[in-house]
Amino acid sequence: MRRIAVEQDIMAKNGRAADLNRERFARERTFVVNLMSSPGSGKTTLLVRTLQELKTRGDRLAVIEGDQQTTLDADRIRATGVPAVQVNTGKGCHLDAEMIMRALAKQPAPAGGTLFIENVGNLVCPAGFDLGEAKKVVIASVTEGEDKPLKYPHMFSVADVLLLSKIDLLPHLRVDLPLMMENARQINPRLKIFPVSAYTGAGMSAWYDWLRTELADVVGASPRGAVAAEAQVG
Amino acid sequence: MRRIAVEQDIMAKNGRAADLNRERFARERTFVVNLMSSPGSGKTTLLVRTLQELKTRGDRLAVIEGDQQTTLDADRIRATGVPAVQVNTGKGCHLDAEMIMRALAKQPAPAGGTLFIENVGNLVCPAGFDLGEAKKVVIASVTEGEDKPLKYPHMFSVADVLLLSKIDLLPHLRVDLPLMMENARQINPRLKIFPVSAYTGAGMSAWYDWLRTELADVVGASPRGAVAAEAQVG
Repeated sequence: MRRIAVEQDIMAKNGRAADLNRERFARERTFVVNLMSSPGSGKTTLLVRTLQELKTRGDRLAVIEGDQQTTLDADRIRATGVPAVQVNTGKGCHLDAEMIMRALAKQPAPAGGTLFIENVGNLVCPAGFDLGEAKKVVIASVTEGEDKPLKYPHMFSVADVLLLSKIDLLPHLRVDLPLMMENARQINPRLKIFPVSAYTGAGMSAWYDWLRTELADVVGASPRGAVAAEAQVG
Repeated sequence: MRRIAVEQDIMAKNGRAADLNRERFARERTFVVNLMSSPGSGKTTLLVRTLQELKTRGDRLAVIEGDQQTTLDADRIRATGVPAVQVNTGKGCHLDAEMIMRALAKQPAPAGGTLFIENVGNLVCPAGFDLGEAKKVVIASVTEGEDKPLKYPHMFSVADVLLLSKIDLLPHLRVDLPLMMENARQINPRLKIFPVSAYTGAGMSAWYDWLRTELADVVGASPRGAVAAEAQVG
């Protein structure tokens, strides 16, 4: 009972911080993506290639990197010229909304742009923690096998997008890609699925298009709201 | 403060249950291995091949399977003829010692044999939970990249053995195996490391040899202890 009460406390506190983050992101018209996956799915490699592409469009970008230890990932991001702040969780298995709030105090979210939050590599814990993001994206490498959506359903059920990564390795694997997609849709029928290779670039344009559309929604919708609000004040 | 106190409660309670499990395993001369890894490292495939090998030696074997959902893994194990019980953790990210205790009530540990516990796929949470096992084995697929020991140090620091799996894929990857081993040894210099492929069988004999030696230690040591104890009583 005591354990459950404390868990409820933690979740309620996280929810309040996530709401504050969300209000801030709405005010600054920042599109925020929470990237989650197992360790070693190729999240950072995929993010680096995505940032390089979005930079060529002149997008405003920033990254918050979560890991138990090291600043290896933030270093890789900064090498692209995009600002990144690293959050180390120690023994913790996920980022929470207050960690994001503290990270934003060090590095503001890009107004009118996209903030990527790369969560701790974990297919369980991050699923339960709202960070105030607009979209949750789960990355699963095809090397992990078809059964992962069935065995870790919580993550796949809360996600908006599934990136099936490392498809360049498919000729060398005994994995059934259509079955992996079918298993994911069985858990979450509204999931958008993009099979991609950050190494060869295969499939990446559909992912970039999705990011472009979602960013336009956030940037396009909010200024009108802001203008209307200003008009009212005036 | 309250959260820390409850965490301490949980860990103390787990420790007591783990001690009871450990006493039981010692009494029954069961060698117990806790297998931990990211989702999709090939734990179950590796375990299936290992069980097939150990069966040819006439070993007594049993498996406890941990997953958030499904009995897929226990079904795969049972197909080898080895008894398996599935524990579903729901939203939980690891097995704990009480779950093992309850699983043992359904399926006894093999006296004089080996019990494999396949933990929930997670490179963070299971590291902190003693199950009463003799040895902790972490499996990392070479597809996950060289940096995983540095980014998830807790798991690698508590492990006795590291199985670097899927080495048959090395020709198709841009991963540096010696660097991955060096990173693991940097976190834990006493780690025994076996690069293996459960698909081709490469490297598996060193792993089997290690299991054989450790089982002999458990089975060989305890009966002498038991005989000595009986002699004293007599």
